[in-house]
Amino acid sequence: MSAKPSSSPGFHLSAEQFRRHGHDAIEWIARYMENVESFPVLSQVKPGQIRSQLPDSPPQTPERLEDIFADLDRIILPGITHWQSPGFFAFFPGNNSAPSILGEVLSAALGVQGMMWVTSPACTELETHVLDWVARMLDLPEKFHSADSGGGVIQDSASSATLCALLAARERKTDGWTNQNGMAGSQPLVAYGSTQTHTSMDKAVRIAGVGQENLIKIDVDDSFAMKPDSLEKAIRRDLEKDRIPFFVCATLGTTSSTAFDPVEAIGSICQKYGLWLHVDAAMSGTAALCPEFRWLNKGLELADSYCFNPHKWMFVNFDCTCFFTADREDLIRTFSVVPEFLRNPASDSGRVIDYRDWQIPLGRRFRALKLWFVIRSYGIEGLQHHVREHVRLARLFRERVENSELFELAAPVRLNLVCFRHKQGDEATRRVLDRVNRSGKMYLTHTRLNHRTVLRMCIGQTHTSQRHVDDAWQLLQEAAEEGPINS
Amino acid sequence: MSAKPSSSPGFHLSAEQFRRHGHDAIEWIARYMENVESFPVLSQVKPGQIRSQLPDSPPQTPERLEDIFADLDRIILPGITHWQSPGFFAFFPGNNSAPSILGEVLSAALGVQGMMWVTSPACTELETHVLDWVARMLDLPEKFHSADSGGGVIQDSASSATLCALLAARERKTDGWTNQNGMAGSQPLVAYGSTQTHTSMDKAVRIAGVGQENLIKIDVDDSFAMKPDSLEKAIRRDLEKDRIPFFVCATLGTTSSTAFDPVEAIGSICQKYGLWLHVDAAMSGTAALCPEFRWLNKGLELADSYCFNPHKWMFVNFDCTCFFTADREDLIRTFSVVPEFLRNPASDSGRVIDYRDWQIPLGRRFRALKLWFVIRSYGIEGLQHHVREHVRLARLFRERVENSELFELAAPVRLNLVCFRHKQGDEATRRVLDRVNRSGKMYLTHTRLNHRTVLRMCIGQTHTSQRHVDDAWQLLQEAAEEGPINS
Repeated sequence: MSAKPSSSPGFHLSAEQFRRHGHDAIEWIARYMENVESFPVLSQVKPGQIRSQLPDSPPQTPERLEDIFADLDRIILPGITHWQSPGFFAFFPGNNSAPSILGEVLSAALGVQGMMWVTSPACTELETHVLDWVARMLDLPEKFHSADSGGGVIQDSASSATLCALLAARERKTDGWTNQNGMAGSQPLVAYGSTQTHTSMDKAVRIAGVGQENLIKIDVDDSFAMKPDSLEKAIRRDLEKDRIPFFVCATLGTTSSTAFDPVEAIGSICQKYGLWLHVDAAMSGTAALCPEFRWLNKGLELADSYCFNPHKWMFVNFDCTCFFTADREDLIRTFSVVPEFLRNPASDSGRVIDYRDWQIPLGRRFRALKLWFVIRSYGIEGLQHHVREHVRLARLFRERVENSELFELAAPVRLNLVCFRHKQGDEATRRVLDRVNRSGKMYLTHTRLNHRTVLRMCIGQTHTSQRHVDDAWQLLQEAAEEGPINS
Repeated sequence: MSAKPSSSPGFHLSAEQFRRHGHDAIEWIARYMENVESFPVLSQVKPGQIRSQLPDSPPQTPERLEDIFADLDRIILPGITHWQSPGFFAFFPGNNSAPSILGEVLSAALGVQGMMWVTSPACTELETHVLDWVARMLDLPEKFHSADSGGGVIQDSASSATLCALLAARERKTDGWTNQNGMAGSQPLVAYGSTQTHTSMDKAVRIAGVGQENLIKIDVDDSFAMKPDSLEKAIRRDLEKDRIPFFVCATLGTTSSTAFDPVEAIGSICQKYGLWLHVDAAMSGTAALCPEFRWLNKGLELADSYCFNPHKWMFVNFDCTCFFTADREDLIRTFSVVPEFLRNPASDSGRVIDYRDWQIPLGRRFRALKLWFVIRSYGIEGLQHHVREHVRLARLFRERVENSELFELAAPVRLNLVCFRHKQGDEATRRVLDRVNRSGKMYLTHTRLNHRTVLRMCIGQTHTSQRHVDDAWQLLQEAAEEGPINS
C-alpha cells in the first residue's frame, strides 16, 4: 500500500485507493448515524432472506468496492437489528460513540497482535495504564490496580471473564493440581450463584469440568438479590458432603432485573470458608463513574475479581470487557504455557506483562486504543453526564408505569432498567411486546420474574433522549389499548 | 450523532464532527501505510517507557481529538511492533489489507452484537454464507458446509477453536455427562497431540479439566510430523489402563517448522478407536486456496473439525479464525444454555443459527463483514496470486540458505516458512537473531528443533516483495559475518 505504484503490485489496493474508499466509508458511516432512526430497530427480515440474495459462489476475480458498498445498503442493512438506534431498549445496550469507532479503525490499521509485551509494547502498556484509570474512575479498591497486587485486562466479554475467574479459583483451591492432573478422580468442586446469575456461569462450570450439578443456585429475596444466609447454608451442606466449595459469582445488576447481590455479606462468607468471590457488574458497573451511584461498590474490597463492560453502557463498541483481578499471579499461574517460539528477553526478564497469560486465547487485538479514545474524548464529566441522563430517563419511565392504568412495575428500579408488565397478565404482556417490536419503532425484550412474563425497558443507548422515551411510552400505550389480536 | 444539532446534546460528537475526524483517521492510516517501512519493525522501547509518558489520571473534562491523534504519533507509535511492515518475518504473520480495514470500521460503526440470529440476521447469515464460500475455496469436504451436517463459524483465535473442539469431543465421548456432572469422579479422558502441536492444546486440556498429564505428546518423524504408529500404541496403552482416549489434534503446518501431520493415517486411527479428530491448519490452511497446494487437505474427510486463520495469511486483520465442524449438533449441545431473556420466536422455531451456541463467549462482533470485503475485493485469483508469491519467495530464500557457507536449513520447507541456523551453533544463531532484530530493519523469531536453536523466516506479510527478502538476506549475512559480540 505504499504510494509508490511499484511497491503495490498484484491485487492489493494502494494507499491512494485506500484513501478514496476509506473516505467513502466515513461518509457512509456519517450518513448511517444521521439516518439510523429511519430504519426498523428490529430487523424485519425472514430466516434465509439475506442468504437468498448472496451469490452461491465467491467471485473468481476482484470486484469493485463500489459494488460491495452497494450490496451493504441493498442486502445487509435490511438484515441489521440497529443496536445504535435510540429506539433500542432491548437486552442490555451495546452502545457506541464516534471516538470508539476511530479507535477501532486505527487498531485495525495498525494490525498488531498484542499477545506479549514484545509484540507491541504500547498495546500492553496502554492497556495496563487505561485499566488503572478505569479502576480509579470507578473507585475500585486499590488491590485491583497494577501498582498493587492486581491489575486489569481487556477481554471480549463478561462470559470469558467469568470463566477466567472460575479457572483461577479452581487452580487456587487445588493448588495447581487440576491444571496438571485434571478433575477426574478428585472430589467435586462446587460453585455458587443465585437463581438470577447470568447463564455465562452455567456455561463456565460446564467448560471448566465443574459441571452443571455443582453450580448451586441460591434463592433470592424480594428484590431478586442473593440471600446470604441461604448461601452459607448451602456451603455448609456441601462441606458436610465432602464437596469442595470454591467459587461464588455475585452480580451487581442482574440481567433480568438489575438486582444487586449484597457483596459485603457474601464476601464475608467467602472469606470465612475460603471461596473466591467474583463480582459481575457487566452493565451496571459503569454507574460507579458517578459518586452518587457508588453504593454499588460496597463490599468490593472483599472480591477476588471484578468485571464490567464498557461495551454495554460506556460508549465503547463491542468488544471491551474490563476484567480486574486482585492477585494477578493467580491468573498467570492458571494460564501460562510458554513454548520456545514465544520466548523473548523481555518476557524472560519478568519486568513486563504478557497478556496472553491473562485470558483464554493466545492472540489479542489492540482494544485499549478505543477505550483510551473514549475516556479522553468524553472526559470523566462527559461520561458521568450521559450515565446520569439515562438514569433520569429510566426514573421518568418508572413514574409513568407507576401512574399507569395499564401497566405495573415488576421489579425495583435501581438504575437504567425498568421491568414492567401488563396488568392483565402474560398474554397481554406478550401481545404488547410483539406489537411494539413489529412496529420497527422500538425494540424491547422480555424476561420472567416470579413466574410471570415481564418487559425490560433498558435505557442506555448513546443517542436515546427524552423524546425517544416519550415516543416509546406512547407506543406501548397504544399497543396495550389495542386489545387482543384477532386470529 | 444526528446532523440535527438538537439531537446531539451533551458530550457526544455529532455526525459532522465524526466526518471531520474520520477523514483525519483515514489520512493518518494512508500515511501509515506509505511510511510503515520507515519505522523499526521491532519496537525498540524499554519496559515502562510508554506508560511513563501517560498521565497518571484520566482527564476530568473532554480532550480534543487532535491532541489524542498527536499522542498516537508521539507516544504510541514508538511502542508498536509493526506487524504490517514488509520486514516482519516473525512468528506467523498477522497480515491485513485495505478491504479488511474497511470491513472492520463498518462493523464498528454498525455496532451490532451477533449473539443470536434475531440480534442482527445479516450478521449470522453473512457469516454462514461466507464460511460456505471459504469451505469451497479451500475445497474442504462437503460435511463442513452448512447445507450438510456441519458449518462454519468465526472465532477469535485458533486457541479458542481448539478448545471448542475439545469440549465438543468431551461431551460426545461422555454423552453429555460431563457438562451435567463435571469431570470429578470419572475416569480420566485422554487427548493426543504431537511434541510439535501448538501450546493452545496444553491450555485447552487444562481449561477443560482434562489436565496436562492427560495430554499425550506423540513423537515425530524427521520432518517433525506426528508418527501414526506411535499414536496408536499410545491409545492402546491408555485403553489398557482404563483411561478414555477421546481427542486428537493434528496440525497442518506446525508453528515451529510448518510440519504436516499425516491426517489420513491419524484419521483412520481415530475412526478405529472412536476419537474426535481436530485439524489445526492455523496458518497453512490458506495455501489450499491454490490447487497445487491441496495435498495438505489429504484425509480431511476423516476430521470432525477444522480451523484456519484468515487473520494470519489471508489479508484479514486479526481477529478472524474460521472454525468448521462436521456435525454442528455436537457443538450446539455442548454450548447451548438458553435463559428466558434470550428466548425469541426465531430461535424457538429452530429455523435459524444462533452463533452464541458455537463458541465460548455469548457476545460476538460482525466479523464476517471484513472477510466478505476481502474475498470480494481480491477475488479467488487475487488471493491465490499472493499466496503463490509468498511461497515463491520462501523457496528463493531456501535456495540462498542451501547455497550459503554460513547458514544451513533446519527443517523441510513446505510452504512459506524457512527454518535455518548458523553453522557454528546456537550461540552464533542467537547472535544473528539479536543483531537483525536490533537493526529495526526486520523482525525474526526463533524456535528449537532437535535441541538446537533455529531461526524462523516466515514470509506472509501483505507487502513483502522480493526486495524485502533480498534485503533481509543481506542483513542476515552481515550479522553472521560480524563475529562474536565483545562483552
